[in-house]
Amino acid sequence: MTQQSHATLSSLLQARYGNNPAVLDALNPTLETLMQHRSVRAFTNEPLAPNTAELLVAAAQSASTSSNLQTWSVVAVQDQDRKDRLSQLAANQAFIRSCPLFLVWVADLARLHELGKDRQKPAESLNYMEMLMMGVIDSALASQNAAVAAESLGLGVVYIGAIRNKPLEVAKELGLPPMGFATFGMCIGHVDPAVNNVVKPRLPQEAVLHKETYQPQAYKQAVDSYNAIMEKFYAEQNMKPLGAWDLHSLNRVRGPEAMGGRDVLVDALRTLGFQMK
Amino acid sequence: MTQQSHATLSSLLQARYGNNPAVLDALNPTLETLMQHRSVRAFTNEPLAPNTAELLVAAAQSASTSSNLQTWSVVAVQDQDRKDRLSQLAANQAFIRSCPLFLVWVADLARLHELGKDRQKPAESLNYMEMLMMGVIDSALASQNAAVAAESLGLGVVYIGAIRNKPLEVAKELGLPPMGFATFGMCIGHVDPAVNNVVKPRLPQEAVLHKETYQPQAYKQAVDSYNAIMEKFYAEQNMKPLGAWDLHSLNRVRGPEAMGGRDVLVDALRTLGFQMK
Repeated sequence: MTQQSHATLSSLLQARYGNNPAVLDALNPTLETLMQHRSVRAFTNEPLAPNTAELLVAAAQSASTSSNLQTWSVVAVQDQDRKDRLSQLAANQAFIRSCPLFLVWVADLARLHELGKDRQKPAESLNYMEMLMMGVIDSALASQNAAVAAESLGLGVVYIGAIRNKPLEVAKELGLPPMGFATFGMCIGHVDPAVNNVVKPRLPQEAVLHKETYQPQAYKQAVDSYNAIMEKFYAEQNMKPLGAWDLHSLNRVRGPEAMGGRDVLVDALRTLGFQMK
Repeated sequence: MTQQSHATLSSLLQARYGNNPAVLDALNPTLETLMQHRSVRAFTNEPLAPNTAELLVAAAQSASTSSNLQTWSVVAVQDQDRKDRLSQLAANQAFIRSCPLFLVWVADLARLHELGKDRQKPAESLNYMEMLMMGVIDSALASQNAAVAAESLGLGVVYIGAIRNKPLEVAKELGLPPMGFATFGMCIGHVDPAVNNVVKPRLPQEAVLHKETYQPQAYKQAVDSYNAIMEKFYAEQNMKPLGAWDLHSLNRVRGPEAMGGRDVLVDALRTLGFQMK
């Protein structure tokens, strides 16, 4: 599976920022894969090649993991009925039903919890917030490697944060043990060529990259620039604009009524066995 | 910056698992970069090329981010005195002092918090656990892209979870605003060729990859196999074994006294402005 460079660094930056920030002038197939990422929400009916999930998991397991504790798991769902049910639990997103492979990434302290019981050793740290956070981070690092691996193979992916809308129901559907929490899902499949999937611009680097210390005023000008870049992007793509990024984003975080059920996440985590001391 | 394949899939799997699990037979420069990851803790004195951080951040910003909210930032530290101080706060790890670039990844709800005040809009969701988790996940996805990008350029990286040992002191050192939390650090530099950095085996896939539903018994045989694989690995590398993986890992999570200060993370997060409702 050869990767060949077709893009220039300048064109990749232009798509990602709407302009060309000053970056090291280097490009290779991996950087190209990374920088060309766009979420894909429309897939063909073509099934994945056998053992695709296993290859993606080999990439995922190659990511760093805190103290080699490997506090994550992934559930690979291909059964249509299960995908249908998970879709209903995750804001009824159609691409969960239509993708050939739906991966659910799990912050997994259950393995160490069970090992502790088996070996009759204390594992008290698992009851602390730190270890939940470690599991969430471990699962995110692993999942991102899988996403990059899939895209290097020409497949399309989209993350599904809405798997956190109904954590208890998702845990039941997947048979998760206590101290297992589905952090997010990921649809994977062959990209539907009839749908135009474009790279979306991000905030100017000035807003996110701080030198030596955090620059608390840097976001102001960056957000104004970004609003304009996104307005131009939507116009060029003939897409219906969502409104200015700042106001749209603030509307997204306006309060619990806009959280799709995730305002009760703490209660759900406690029910799932995380004490979060 | 051309990438050329030197490895076979079989050799990559052998290094990662101590055997050859059945995976899709596909390989490309990106998969090779991903699967060859090993943590690097010894760097040469050679400085990084100018604007390396900017290129890594372009890769990082290309990662998925929930609802395009981009709830993360990164602080790029190169000043020697600051690296020295951060090293002292993070278990005194020498490679934080010796790496040319130390990135601190931040779960950043401050930007939206400030925007809400500027635009006089409510941003009540930021006070919920869900949004802290979103920021942690966003920062992890971004950081992993940066790590992969760095490795594709031939640089070495290591994650520093110990940046969570003293969150308040780290926040003060970096001037983080309220609702900014340093999730982990990352050392980046040119690999010291005098040090042998090897790929570390991971748990057999059976322990982490579950088909359709979580298999609660799968870890048992996998952990026994892994203990043996790791014992062989340490012997082959002439490395001092840490003891069987299961017992070593359980010792790592035995209780708050072994958490390096992270047993008070909840209090620190509240002090940093996260209500975690």
